[in-house]
Amino acid sequence: MTNTHPTPVSVLGLGGMGTELARALIAKGHPVTVWNRTSARTDQLVELGAARASDPAEAISASPVVIACLLDHQSVRDTFDDHTEHLRGKTLVNLTTTVPGQARELAAWAACHAFDVLDGGIMAVPPMIGGPDAFLLYSGPREAFDRVEPVLAAFGEARYLDADPGRAALYDIALLTGMYGAVAGIIQALALVRAEGQPSAEVAPLLSRWLRGVAAAVGVYAEQIDSRDYAKGTVANLAMQTTGFGHLLDFAESQGVSAELLAPLAELMRRRVAEGHGHEEVTGIVEFLLSKGSTS
Amino acid sequence: MTNTHPTPVSVLGLGGMGTELARALIAKGHPVTVWNRTSARTDQLVELGAARASDPAEAISASPVVIACLLDHQSVRDTFDDHTEHLRGKTLVNLTTTVPGQARELAAWAACHAFDVLDGGIMAVPPMIGGPDAFLLYSGPREAFDRVEPVLAAFGEARYLDADPGRAALYDIALLTGMYGAVAGIIQALALVRAEGQPSAEVAPLLSRWLRGVAAAVGVYAEQIDSRDYAKGTVANLAMQTTGFGHLLDFAESQGVSAELLAPLAELMRRRVAEGHGHEEVTGIVEFLLSKGSTS
Repeated sequence: MTNTHPTPVSVLGLGGMGTELARALIAKGHPVTVWNRTSARTDQLVELGAARASDPAEAISASPVVIACLLDHQSVRDTFDDHTEHLRGKTLVNLTTTVPGQARELAAWAACHAFDVLDGGIMAVPPMIGGPDAFLLYSGPREAFDRVEPVLAAFGEARYLDADPGRAALYDIALLTGMYGAVAGIIQALALVRAEGQPSAEVAPLLSRWLRGVAAAVGVYAEQIDSRDYAKGTVANLAMQTTGFGHLLDFAESQGVSAELLAPLAELMRRRVAEGHGHEEVTGIVEFLLSKGSTS
Repeated sequence: MTNTHPTPVSVLGLGGMGTELARALIAKGHPVTVWNRTSARTDQLVELGAARASDPAEAISASPVVIACLLDHQSVRDTFDDHTEHLRGKTLVNLTTTVPGQARELAAWAACHAFDVLDGGIMAVPPMIGGPDAFLLYSGPREAFDRVEPVLAAFGEARYLDADPGRAALYDIALLTGMYGAVAGIIQALALVRAEGQPSAEVAPLLSRWLRGVAAAVGVYAEQIDSRDYAKGTVANLAMQTTGFGHLLDFAESQGVSAELLAPLAELMRRRVAEGHGHEEVTGIVEFLLSKGSTS
Protein backbone atom coordinates (compact mmCIF):
# COMPACT_ATOMS: atom_id res chain seq x y z
CA MET A 1 0.00 0.00 0.00
CA THR A 2 3.01 2.33 0.36
CA ASN A 3 5.36 3.75 -2.25
CA THR A 4 8.67 1.95 -2.64
CA HIS A 5 10.66 4.89 -1.32
CA PRO A 6 8.23 7.43 -0.01
CA THR A 7 9.88 10.83 0.37
CA PRO A 8 10.09 12.21 3.90
CA VAL A 9 7.92 15.32 4.20
CA SER A 10 7.62 17.95 6.91
CA VAL A 11 4.39 19.85 7.48
CA LEU A 12 4.48 23.19 9.30
CA GLY A 13 1.13 24.59 10.37
CA LEU A 14 -1.57 22.25 11.63
CA GLY A 15 -4.81 24.13 11.29
CA GLY A 16 -7.77 22.28 9.83
CA MET A 17 -6.14 22.16 6.42
CA GLY A 18 -2.55 21.44 7.53
CA THR A 19 -3.80 18.55 9.65
CA GLU A 20 -5.54 16.98 6.64
CA LEU A 21 -2.43 17.46 4.49
CA ALA A 22 -0.28 15.65 7.06
CA ARG A 23 -2.85 12.91 7.44
CA ALA A 24 -2.97 12.37 3.66
CA LEU A 25 0.84 12.06 3.53
CA ILE A 26 0.86 9.57 6.38
CA ALA A 27 -1.83 7.56 4.60
CA LYS A 28 0.43 7.32 1.54
CA GLY A 29 3.31 6.00 3.62
CA HIS A 30 5.49 9.11 3.73
CA PRO A 31 7.62 9.58 6.83
CA VAL A 32 6.03 12.79 8.14
CA THR A 33 7.40 15.31 10.61
CA VAL A 34 4.98 17.90 11.95
CA TRP A 35 5.29 21.23 13.71
CA ASN A 36 2.70 23.68 14.91
CA ARG A 37 3.02 26.98 16.77
CA THR A 38 0.86 25.54 19.51
CA SER A 39 1.34 21.86 20.21
CA ALA A 40 -2.30 20.85 20.76
CA ARG A 41 -2.92 19.83 17.15
CA THR A 42 0.07 17.53 16.83
CA ASP A 43 -1.06 14.75 19.17
CA GLN A 44 -3.53 13.07 16.83
CA LEU A 45 -0.95 13.07 14.03
CA VAL A 46 1.74 11.60 16.29
CA GLU A 47 -0.73 8.83 17.12
CA LEU A 48 -1.00 8.15 13.38
CA GLY A 49 2.78 7.86 13.15
CA ALA A 50 4.08 11.38 12.58
CA ALA A 51 7.25 12.62 14.28
CA ARG A 52 6.86 15.76 16.37
CA ALA A 53 9.38 18.55 15.80
CA SER A 54 9.93 20.92 18.69
CA ASP A 55 10.70 23.92 16.51
CA PRO A 56 10.66 24.96 12.83
CA ALA A 57 14.42 24.29 12.41
CA GLU A 58 13.98 20.69 13.51
CA ALA A 59 10.98 20.24 11.20
CA ILE A 60 12.76 21.75 8.21
CA SER A 61 15.89 19.67 8.78
CA ALA A 62 13.94 16.42 8.85
CA SER A 63 12.82 16.30 5.20
CA PRO A 64 13.77 17.35 1.65
CA VAL A 65 10.19 18.51 1.02
CA VAL A 66 8.72 21.08 3.38
CA ILE A 67 5.01 21.97 3.31
CA ALA A 68 3.88 25.25 4.85
CA CYS A 69 0.20 25.75 5.63
CA LEU A 70 0.25 28.72 7.96
CA LEU A 71 -2.03 31.60 8.85
CA ASP A 72 -0.78 34.09 6.27
CA HIS A 73 2.22 35.35 4.36
CA GLN A 74 3.72 37.06 7.40
CA SER A 75 3.59 33.79 9.35
CA VAL A 76 5.54 32.12 6.56
CA ARG A 77 8.27 34.76 6.71
CA ASP A 78 8.34 34.65 10.52
CA THR A 79 8.59 30.86 10.52
CA PHE A 80 11.27 30.42 7.86
CA ASP A 81 13.34 33.63 7.85
CA ASP A 82 15.81 32.46 10.48
CA HIS A 83 16.14 28.97 9.05
CA THR A 84 17.05 29.49 5.43
CA GLU A 85 20.27 27.51 5.84
CA HIS A 86 18.19 24.39 6.56
CA LEU A 87 16.16 24.95 3.41
CA ARG A 88 19.16 25.05 1.05
CA GLY A 89 18.64 22.66 -1.88
CA LYS A 90 15.17 21.71 -0.70
CA THR A 91 11.67 22.47 -1.94
CA LEU A 92 9.29 24.56 0.10
CA VAL A 93 5.70 24.03 -0.97
CA ASN A 94 3.75 26.98 0.32
CA LEU A 95 0.06 26.15 0.63
CA THR A 96 -0.59 29.16 2.84
CA THR A 97 -3.17 31.47 1.26
CA THR A 98 -1.31 34.35 -0.41
CA VAL A 99 -1.77 36.96 -3.09
CA PRO A 100 0.35 36.92 -6.28
CA GLY A 101 2.74 39.65 -5.07
CA GLN A 102 3.50 37.73 -1.89
CA ALA A 103 4.16 34.54 -3.83
CA ARG A 104 6.59 36.42 -6.06
CA GLU A 105 8.31 37.98 -3.05
CA LEU A 106 8.77 34.55 -1.50
CA ALA A 107 10.21 33.18 -4.74
CA ALA A 108 12.76 36.01 -4.94
CA TRP A 109 13.76 35.42 -1.32
CA ALA A 110 14.09 31.66 -1.94
CA ALA A 111 16.32 32.32 -4.95
CA CYS A 112 18.70 34.30 -2.70
CA HIS A 113 18.96 31.35 -0.35
CA ALA A 114 19.30 28.56 -2.91
CA PHE A 115 16.06 26.68 -2.39
CA ASP A 116 12.92 26.30 -4.47
CA VAL A 117 9.45 27.51 -3.64
CA LEU A 118 6.31 26.18 -5.20
CA ASP A 119 3.27 28.27 -4.41
CA GLY A 120 0.05 26.32 -4.23
CA GLY A 121 -3.65 27.05 -4.10
CA ILE A 122 -5.86 24.39 -2.58
CA MET A 123 -9.20 24.07 -4.37
CA ALA A 124 -10.85 21.99 -1.67
CA VAL A 125 -12.09 22.19 1.87
CA PRO A 126 -10.17 20.09 4.42
CA PRO A 127 -12.41 16.98 4.33
CA MET A 128 -11.85 16.74 0.56
CA ILE A 129 -8.05 16.44 0.84
CA GLY A 130 -6.82 13.16 -0.61
CA GLY A 131 -10.20 12.53 -2.23
CA PRO A 132 -11.16 12.46 -5.91
CA ASP A 133 -12.63 15.97 -6.04
CA ALA A 134 -9.71 17.92 -4.58
CA PHE A 135 -7.46 19.76 -6.98
CA LEU A 136 -4.50 21.98 -6.23
CA LEU A 137 -2.89 24.63 -8.43
CA TYR A 138 0.89 25.15 -8.37
CA SER A 139 3.23 27.71 -9.84
CA GLY A 140 7.00 28.18 -9.63
CA PRO A 141 9.93 26.26 -11.14
CA ARG A 142 8.73 23.42 -13.36
CA GLU A 143 11.63 21.14 -12.29
CA ALA A 144 10.71 21.57 -8.65
CA PHE A 145 7.12 20.63 -9.43
CA ASP A 146 8.16 17.54 -11.36
CA ARG A 147 10.43 16.48 -8.50
CA VAL A 148 7.81 16.75 -5.76
CA GLU A 149 4.74 15.78 -7.77
CA PRO A 150 4.66 12.26 -6.25
CA VAL A 151 4.36 13.93 -2.84
CA LEU A 152 1.72 16.42 -3.99
CA ALA A 153 -0.37 13.61 -5.47
CA ALA A 154 -1.31 12.65 -1.91
CA PHE A 155 -3.45 15.79 -1.58
CA GLY A 156 -5.47 15.56 -4.80
CA GLU A 157 -4.98 16.30 -8.47
CA ALA A 158 -1.84 18.43 -8.79
CA ARG A 159 -2.11 20.97 -11.61
CA TYR A 160 1.04 22.83 -12.67
CA LEU A 161 0.32 26.29 -14.07
CA ASP A 162 3.33 28.47 -14.78
CA ALA A 163 6.83 29.55 -13.81
CA ASP A 164 5.34 32.86 -12.63
CA PRO A 165 5.17 32.20 -8.88
CA GLY A 166 2.04 34.35 -8.57
CA ARG A 167 -0.12 32.40 -10.98
CA ALA A 168 -1.48 29.84 -8.51
CA ALA A 169 -2.42 32.57 -6.03
CA LEU A 170 -4.15 34.57 -8.77
CA TYR A 171 -6.27 31.63 -9.90
CA ASP A 172 -6.94 30.55 -6.33
CA ILE A 173 -8.32 34.02 -5.60
CA ALA A 174 -10.27 34.12 -8.85
CA LEU A 175 -11.90 30.74 -8.21
CA LEU A 176 -12.78 31.54 -4.60
CA THR A 177 -14.21 34.87 -5.70
CA GLY A 178 -16.33 33.12 -8.31
CA MET A 179 -17.52 30.71 -5.64
CA TYR A 180 -18.84 33.50 -3.44
CA GLY A 181 -20.99 34.79 -6.27
CA ALA A 182 -22.49 31.35 -6.65
CA VAL A 183 -22.96 31.10 -2.88
CA ALA A 184 -24.87 34.39 -2.86
CA GLY A 185 -27.06 33.12 -5.70
CA ILE A 186 -27.73 29.79 -3.99
CA ILE A 187 -28.73 31.41 -0.70
CA GLN A 188 -30.96 33.93 -2.49
CA ALA A 189 -32.65 31.13 -4.46
CA LEU A 190 -33.25 29.03 -1.36
CA ALA A 191 -34.56 32.09 0.50
CA LEU A 192 -37.23 32.53 -2.18
CA VAL A 193 -38.34 28.94 -1.80
CA ARG A 194 -38.42 29.14 1.99
CA ALA A 195 -40.40 32.38 1.82
CA GLU A 196 -43.10 30.46 -0.11
CA GLY A 197 -43.19 27.88 2.66
CA GLN A 198 -41.64 25.16 0.53
CA PRO A 199 -38.91 22.87 1.84
CA SER A 200 -35.75 23.10 -0.28
CA ALA A 201 -35.23 19.37 -0.65
CA GLU A 202 -37.11 19.25 -3.96
CA VAL A 203 -35.55 22.31 -5.56
CA ALA A 204 -31.99 21.62 -4.38
CA PRO A 205 -31.09 18.97 -6.98
CA LEU A 206 -32.71 21.07 -9.71
CA LEU A 207 -30.71 24.12 -8.67
CA SER A 208 -27.55 22.04 -8.47
CA ARG A 209 -28.09 20.70 -11.98
CA TRP A 210 -28.90 24.14 -13.34
CA LEU A 211 -25.74 25.64 -11.81
CA ARG A 212 -23.63 22.90 -13.38
CA GLY A 213 -25.06 24.09 -16.68
CA VAL A 214 -24.16 27.68 -15.81
CA ALA A 215 -20.61 26.54 -14.99
CA ALA A 216 -20.38 25.20 -18.53
CA ALA A 217 -20.89 28.76 -19.82
CA VAL A 218 -17.65 30.04 -18.26
CA GLY A 219 -15.76 29.39 -21.49
CA VAL A 220 -18.05 31.60 -23.56
CA TYR A 221 -17.88 34.37 -20.95
CA ALA A 222 -14.07 34.11 -20.88
CA GLU A 223 -13.86 34.49 -24.67
CA GLN A 224 -16.06 37.57 -24.55
CA ILE A 225 -14.05 39.15 -21.76
CA ASP A 226 -10.69 38.37 -23.38
CA SER A 227 -11.74 39.65 -26.80
CA ARG A 228 -13.67 42.67 -25.45
CA ASP A 229 -16.32 41.51 -27.92
CA TYR A 230 -19.30 41.20 -25.65
CA ALA A 231 -21.67 40.37 -28.48
CA LYS A 232 -19.71 37.23 -29.45
CA GLY A 233 -21.97 34.21 -29.24
CA THR A 234 -24.78 36.08 -27.46
CA VAL A 235 -27.73 33.79 -26.75
CA ALA A 236 -29.68 36.07 -24.42
CA ASN A 237 -29.17 39.75 -24.99
CA LEU A 238 -28.54 42.10 -22.10
CA ALA A 239 -31.65 44.21 -22.66
CA MET A 240 -33.93 41.16 -22.31
CA GLN A 241 -31.90 39.79 -19.43
CA THR A 242 -32.02 43.09 -17.58
CA THR A 243 -35.81 43.24 -17.84
CA GLY A 244 -36.17 39.61 -16.78
CA PHE A 245 -33.70 39.95 -13.92
CA GLY A 246 -35.56 43.05 -12.70
CA HIS A 247 -38.73 40.94 -12.53
CA LEU A 248 -36.91 38.28 -10.51
CA LEU A 249 -35.78 40.86 -7.97
CA ASP A 250 -39.24 42.49 -7.87
CA PHE A 251 -40.71 39.07 -7.14
CA ALA A 252 -38.24 38.58 -4.30
CA GLU A 253 -39.18 41.91 -2.74
CA SER A 254 -42.89 41.11 -3.18
CA GLN A 255 -42.33 37.93 -1.16
CA GLY A 256 -40.53 39.83 1.57
CA VAL A 257 -37.10 38.57 0.50
CA SER A 258 -34.45 41.25 0.33
CA ALA A 259 -32.80 41.51 -3.09
CA GLU A 260 -29.74 43.28 -1.68
CA LEU A 261 -27.29 40.50 -2.62
CA LEU A 262 -28.02 40.81 -6.33
CA ALA A 263 -28.99 44.49 -6.57
CA PRO A 264 -25.50 45.66 -7.63
CA LEU A 265 -25.53 43.29 -10.61
CA ALA A 266 -28.95 44.58 -11.67
CA GLU A 267 -27.67 48.15 -11.39
CA LEU A 268 -24.61 47.51 -13.58
CA MET A 269 -26.76 45.70 -16.15
CA ARG A 270 -29.15 48.66 -16.33
CA ARG A 271 -26.22 51.10 -16.73
CA ARG A 272 -24.75 49.00 -19.50
CA VAL A 273 -28.06 48.89 -21.37
CA ALA A 274 -28.48 52.65 -20.88
CA GLU A 275 -25.09 53.14 -22.52
CA GLY A 276 -26.21 51.34 -25.67
CA HIS A 277 -25.00 47.77 -25.08
CA GLY A 278 -28.40 46.09 -24.79
CA HIS A 279 -27.69 43.83 -27.77
CA GLU A 280 -24.58 42.35 -26.17
CA GLU A 281 -24.12 39.79 -23.37
CA VAL A 282 -24.06 40.49 -19.63
CA THR A 283 -20.27 40.09 -19.57
CA GLY A 284 -19.86 43.68 -20.79
CA ILE A 285 -20.37 44.89 -17.22
CA VAL A 286 -16.75 43.83 -16.63
CA GLU A 287 -15.85 47.20 -18.14
CA PHE A 288 -17.45 48.94 -15.15
CA LEU A 289 -15.54 46.73 -12.71
CA LEU A 290 -12.23 47.48 -14.41
CA SER A 291 -12.72 51.23 -14.70
CA LYS A 292 -14.08 52.35 -11.39
CA GLY A 293 -15.80 55.70 -11.52
CA SER A 294 -15.64 55.80 -15.29
CA THR A 295 -18.86 55.56 -17.25
CA SER A 296 -17.66 53.32 -20.05
CA MET B 1 -38.25 9.21 -37.72
CA THR B 2 -41.75 10.41 -36.66
CA ASN B 3 -44.09 9.13 -33.98
CA THR B 4 -46.87 6.86 -35.15
CA HIS B 5 -49.59 9.39 -34.41
CA PRO B 6 -47.91 12.65 -33.55
CA THR B 7 -50.32 14.97 -31.75
CA PRO B 8 -51.16 18.23 -33.52
CA VAL B 9 -49.81 21.16 -31.54
CA SER B 10 -50.34 24.90 -31.84
CA VAL B 11 -47.71 27.38 -30.75
CA LEU B 12 -48.70 30.95 -29.97
CA GLY B 13 -45.87 33.42 -29.56
CA LEU B 14 -42.82 33.18 -31.81
CA GLY B 15 -40.08 35.05 -30.04
CA GLY B 16 -36.66 33.44 -29.89
CA MET B 17 -37.93 30.75 -27.53
CA GLY B 18 -41.32 30.14 -29.16
CA THR B 19 -39.64 29.72 -32.52
CA GLU B 20 -37.34 27.02 -31.12
CA LEU B 21 -40.27 25.26 -29.46
CA ALA B 22 -42.17 25.14 -32.75
CA ARG B 23 -39.06 23.98 -34.60
CA ALA B 24 -38.51 21.15 -32.09
CA LEU B 25 -42.11 19.98 -32.52
CA ILE B 26 -41.81 20.03 -36.31
CA ALA B 27 -38.59 18.02 -36.04
CA LYS B 28 -40.45 15.35 -34.09
CA GLY B 29 -43.13 15.10 -36.78
CA HIS B 30 -45.96 16.92 -35.01
CA PRO B 31 -48.41 18.79 -37.23
CA VAL B 32 -47.71 22.32 -35.97
CA THR B 33 -49.84 25.43 -36.32
CA VAL B 34 -48.20 28.75 -35.42
CA TRP B 35 -49.44 32.21 -34.64
CA ASN B 36 -47.58 35.37 -33.72
CA ARG B 37 -48.82 38.89 -33.03
CA THR B 38 -46.62 40.14 -35.87
CA SER B 39 -46.29 37.80 -38.84
CA ALA B 40 -42.57 38.27 -39.59
CA ARG B 41 -41.44 35.32 -37.46
CA THR B 42 -43.79 32.75 -38.96
CA ASP B 43 -42.26 32.53 -42.46
CA GLN B 44 -39.28 30.34 -41.54
CA LEU B 45 -41.55 27.93 -39.64
CA VAL B 46 -44.01 27.71 -42.54
CA GLU B 47 -41.07 26.81 -44.76
CA LEU B 48 -40.31 23.97 -42.35
CA GLY B 49 -43.87 22.73 -42.67
CA ALA B 50 -45.90 24.62 -40.06
CA ALA B 51 -49.39 25.90 -40.83
CA ARG B 52 -49.92 29.63 -40.34
CA ALA B 53 -52.94 30.70 -38.30
CA SER B 54 -54.27 34.17 -38.99
CA ASP B 55 -55.52 34.75 -35.45
CA PRO B 56 -55.41 33.10 -32.00
CA ALA B 57 -58.85 31.50 -32.47
CA GLU B 58 -57.68 29.71 -35.59
CA ALA B 59 -54.47 28.56 -33.88
CA ILE B 60 -56.30 27.30 -30.80
CA SER B 61 -58.91 25.48 -32.88
CA ALA B 62 -56.27 23.61 -34.87
CA SER B 63 -54.86 21.39 -32.08
CA PRO B 64 -55.71 19.64 -28.83
CA VAL B 65 -52.46 20.88 -27.27
CA VAL B 66 -51.81 24.61 -27.25
CA ILE B 67 -48.43 26.05 -26.28
CA ALA B 68 -48.22 29.68 -25.21
CA CYS B 69 -44.84 31.41 -25.16
CA LEU B 70 -45.76 35.06 -24.99
CA LEU B 71 -44.28 38.24 -23.58
CA ASP B 72 -45.84 38.07 -20.13
CA HIS B 73 -48.88 37.05 -18.12
CA GLN B 74 -50.99 39.94 -19.44
CA SER B 75 -50.27 38.88 -23.03
CA VAL B 76 -51.53 35.40 -22.15
CA ARG B 77 -54.79 36.78 -20.80
CA ASP B 78 -55.16 39.17 -23.77
CA THR B 79 -54.54 36.37 -26.25
CA PHE B 80 -56.80 33.71 -24.75
CA ASP B 81 -59.53 35.56 -22.85
CA ASP B 82 -61.89 35.85 -25.82
CA HIS B 83 -61.31 32.30 -27.04
CA THR B 84 -61.98 30.13 -24.05
CA GLU B 85 -64.71 28.23 -25.95
CA HIS B 86 -62.02 26.91 -28.31
CA LEU B 87 -59.91 25.73 -25.40
CA ARG B 88 -62.66 23.57 -23.84
CA GLY B 89 -61.33 20.07 -23.13
CA LYS B 90 -57.86 20.95 -24.34
CA THR B 91 -54.54 21.48 -22.60
CA LEU B 92 -52.89 24.88 -22.57
CA VAL B 93 -49.19 24.60 -21.77
CA ASN B 94 -48.10 28.03 -20.66
CA LEU B 95 -44.36 28.47 -21.11
CA THR B 96 -44.61 32.23 -20.76
CA THR B 97 -42.51 33.47 -17.84
CA THR B 98 -44.82 34.04 -14.88
CA VAL B 99 -44.75 34.30 -11.12
CA PRO B 100 -46.53 31.72 -8.94
CA GLY B 101 -49.57 33.93 -8.28
CA GLN B 102 -50.13 34.44 -12.00
CA ALA B 103 -49.87 30.72 -12.67
CA ARG B 104 -52.47 30.08 -9.97
CA GLU B 105 -54.76 32.77 -11.37
CA LEU B 106 -54.54 31.19 -14.82
CA ALA B 107 -55.33 27.75 -13.39
CA ALA B 108 -58.43 29.09 -11.64
CA TRP B 109 -59.57 30.78 -14.85
CA ALA B 110 -58.98 27.58 -16.83
CA ALA B 111 -61.03 25.58 -14.33
CA CYS B 112 -63.97 27.94 -14.94
CA HIS B 113 -63.76 27.27 -18.66
CA ALA B 114 -63.24 23.50 -18.59
CA PHE B 115 -59.73 23.24 -19.92
CA ASP B 116 -56.41 22.32 -18.31
CA VAL B 117 -53.41 24.53 -17.84
CA LEU B 118 -49.92 23.28 -17.25
CA ASP B 119 -47.54 26.00 -16.22
CA GLY B 120 -43.98 25.43 -17.35
CA GLY B 121 -40.57 26.91 -16.64
CA ILE B 122 -37.95 26.46 -19.33
CA MET B 123 -34.48 25.81 -17.89
CA ALA B 124 -32.63 26.45 -21.12
CA VAL B 125 -31.78 29.18 -23.56
CA PRO B 126 -33.39 28.88 -27.00
CA PRO B 127 -30.48 27.07 -28.77
CA MET B 128 -30.65 24.32 -26.13
CA ILE B 129 -34.28 23.41 -26.87
CA GLY B 130 -34.58 19.81 -28.02
CA GLY B 131 -31.01 19.08 -26.91
CA PRO B 132 -29.78 16.85 -24.09
CA ASP B 133 -29.14 19.67 -21.58
CA ALA B 134 -32.55 21.35 -21.67
CA PHE B 135 -34.96 20.61 -18.86
CA LEU B 136 -38.39 22.02 -18.24
CA LEU B 137 -40.39 22.15 -15.03
CA TYR B 138 -44.17 21.71 -15.06
CA SER B 139 -46.90 22.07 -12.49
CA GLY B 140 -50.65 21.68 -12.68
CA PRO B 141 -52.96 18.64 -13.04
CA ARG B 142 -50.94 15.41 -13.11
CA GLU B 143 -53.33 13.81 -15.65
CA ALA B 144 -52.82 16.71 -18.03
CA PHE B 145 -49.08 16.33 -17.75
CA ASP B 146 -49.23 12.59 -18.38
CA ARG B 147 -51.42 13.15 -21.43
CA VAL B 148 -49.17 15.74 -23.09
CA GLU B 149 -45.79 14.41 -21.94
CA PRO B 150 -45.04 12.87 -25.37
CA VAL B 151 -45.43 16.36 -26.84
CA LEU B 152 -43.34 18.03 -24.11
CA ALA B 153 -40.53 15.51 -24.63
CA ALA B 154 -39.70 17.35 -27.86
CA PHE B 155 -38.37 20.32 -25.88
CA GLY B 156 -36.09 18.52 -23.43
CA GLU B 157 -36.44 16.56 -20.21
CA ALA B 158 -39.96 17.18 -18.87
CA ARG B 159 -40.04 17.25 -15.07
CA TYR B 160 -43.43 17.21 -13.33
CA LEU B 161 -43.41 18.95 -9.96
CA ASP B 162 -46.75 19.39 -8.28
CA ALA B 163 -50.47 20.00 -8.61
CA ASP B 164 -49.90 23.51 -7.22
CA PRO B 165 -49.89 25.50 -10.47
CA GLY B 166 -47.37 27.97 -9.03
CA ARG B 167 -44.62 25.49 -8.28
CA ALA B 168 -42.92 25.55 -11.69
CA ALA B 169 -42.86 29.35 -11.70
CA LEU B 170 -41.40 29.42 -8.20
CA TYR B 171 -38.58 27.05 -9.06
CA ASP B 172 -37.99 28.73 -12.40
CA ILE B 173 -37.51 32.03 -10.57
CA ALA B 174 -35.34 30.44 -7.89
CA LEU B 175 -33.06 28.77 -10.43
CA LEU B 176 -32.70 31.89 -12.56
CA THR B 177 -31.98 33.92 -9.44
CA GLY B 178 -29.28 31.45 -8.43
CA MET B 179 -27.81 31.71 -11.90
CA TYR B 180 -27.38 35.46 -11.63
CA GLY B 181 -25.34 35.05 -8.47
CA ALA B 182 -23.06 32.64 -10.30
CA VAL B 183 -22.89 35.01 -13.26
CA ALA B 184 -21.78 37.86 -10.97
CA GLY B 185 -19.11 35.60 -9.47
CA ILE B 186 -17.85 34.44 -12.86
CA ILE B 187 -17.55 37.98 -14.20
CA GLN B 188 -15.81 39.16 -11.03
CA ALA B 189 -13.35 36.23 -11.21
CA LEU B 190 -12.55 36.86 -14.87
CA ALA B 191 -12.15 40.59 -14.18
CA LEU B 192 -9.42 39.77 -11.63
CA VAL B 193 -7.55 37.67 -14.16
CA ARG B 194 -7.85 40.30 -16.89
CA ALA B 195 -6.65 43.00 -14.48
CA GLU B 196 -3.45 40.98 -14.05
CA GLY B 197 -3.00 40.93 -17.82
CA GLN B 198 -3.70 37.21 -18.10
CA PRO B 199 -5.94 35.77 -20.81
CA SER B 200 -8.86 33.85 -19.32
CA ALA B 201 -8.49 30.77 -21.51
CA GLU B 202 -6.36 28.97 -18.92
CA VAL B 203 -8.43 29.80 -15.86
CA ALA B 204 -11.82 29.24 -17.52
CA PRO B 205 -11.87 25.42 -17.35
CA LEU B 206 -10.55 25.54 -13.78
CA LEU B 207 -13.27 27.98 -12.76
CA SER B 208 -15.87 25.87 -14.54
CA ARG B 209 -14.72 22.75 -12.71
CA TRP B 210 -14.63 24.56 -9.37
CA LEU B 211 -18.17 25.90 -9.83
CA ARG B 212 -19.44 22.41 -10.61
CA GLY B 213 -18.05 21.47 -7.22
CA VAL B 214 -19.82 24.43 -5.60
CA ALA B 215 -23.06 23.32 -7.28
CA ALA B 216 -22.68 20.00 -5.49
CA ALA B 217 -22.90 21.85 -2.15
CA VAL B 218 -26.47 23.05 -2.79
CA GLY B 219 -27.87 20.04 -0.95
CA VAL B 220 -25.97 20.84 2.26
CA TYR B 221 -26.99 24.50 2.08
CA ALA B 222 -30.62 23.49 1.51
CA GLU B 223 -30.60 21.26 4.58
CA GLN B 224 -29.17 24.06 6.72
CA ILE B 225 -31.72 26.56 5.45
CA ASP B 226 -34.66 24.17 5.86
CA SER B 227 -33.66 23.11 9.35
CA ARG B 228 -32.60 26.61 10.48
CA ASP B 229 -29.55 24.78 11.85
CA TYR B 230 -26.78 26.71 10.18
CA ALA B 231 -24.05 24.81 11.96
CA LYS B 232 -25.15 21.46 10.49
CA GLY B 233 -22.27 19.93 8.55
CA THR B 234 -20.12 23.07 8.67
CA VAL B 235 -16.80 22.55 6.91
CA ALA B 236 -15.62 26.16 6.80
CA ASN B 237 -16.95 28.34 9.58
CA LEU B 238 -18.32 31.76 8.88
CA ALA B 239 -15.73 33.66 10.95
CA MET B 240 -12.85 32.20 8.91
CA GLN B 241 -14.75 32.60 5.67
CA THR B 242 -15.57 36.23 6.43
CA THR B 243 -11.90 37.03 7.04
CA GLY B 244 -10.80 35.19 3.92
CA PHE B 245 -13.52 36.73 1.77
CA GLY B 246 -12.54 40.17 3.02
CA HIS B 247 -8.99 39.50 1.79
CA LEU B 248 -10.31 38.45 -1.61
CA LEU B 249 -12.22 41.73 -1.96
CA ASP B 250 -9.26 43.76 -0.69
CA PHE B 251 -7.10 42.10 -3.32
CA ALA B 252 -9.63 43.01 -6.01
CA GLU B 253 -9.63 46.65 -4.94
CA SER B 254 -5.80 46.65 -4.80
CA GLN B 255 -5.78 45.53 -8.44
CA GLY B 256 -8.22 48.28 -9.43
CA VAL B 257 -11.14 45.86 -9.72
CA SER B 258 -14.33 47.09 -8.08
CA ALA B 259 -15.70 44.68 -5.48
CA GLU B 260 -19.19 46.16 -5.66
CA LEU B 261 -20.86 42.99 -6.97
CA LEU B 262 -19.89 40.97 -3.90
CA ALA B 263 -19.77 43.69 -1.25
CA PRO B 264 -23.33 43.07 0.02
CA LEU B 265 -22.50 39.41 0.74
CA ALA B 266 -19.40 40.44 2.67
CA GLU B 267 -21.48 42.91 4.67
CA LEU B 268 -24.12 40.34 5.63
CA MET B 269 -21.38 37.85 6.57
CA ARG B 270 -19.74 40.41 8.86
CA ARG B 271 -23.08 41.26 10.47
CA ARG B 272 -23.81 37.59 11.07
CA VAL B 273 -20.39 37.06 12.71
CA ALA B 274 -20.89 40.20 14.82
CA GLU B 275 -24.15 38.71 16.07
CA GLY B 276 -22.37 35.63 17.35
CA HIS B 277 -22.79 33.14 14.51
CA GLY B 278 -19.13 32.87 13.50
CA HIS B 279 -19.05 29.14 14.22
CA GLU B 280 -21.88 28.41 11.77
CA GLU B 281 -21.99 28.28 7.96
CA VAL B 282 -22.52 31.20 5.58
CA THR B 283 -26.11 30.08 4.95
CA GLY B 284 -27.20 31.80 8.18
CA ILE B 285 -27.31 35.12 6.29
CA VAL B 286 -30.61 33.90 4.87
CA GLU B 287 -32.13 35.16 8.12
CA PHE B 288 -31.24 38.72 7.13
CA LEU B 289 -32.78 38.27 3.69
CA LEU B 290 -36.01 36.95 5.17
CA SER B 291 -36.38 39.60 7.86
CA LYS B 292 -35.61 42.87 6.19
CA GLY B 293 -34.73 45.61 8.60
CA SER B 294 -34.65 43.20 11.53
CA THR B 295 -31.33 42.51 13.21
CA SER B 296 -31.75 38.82 13.84
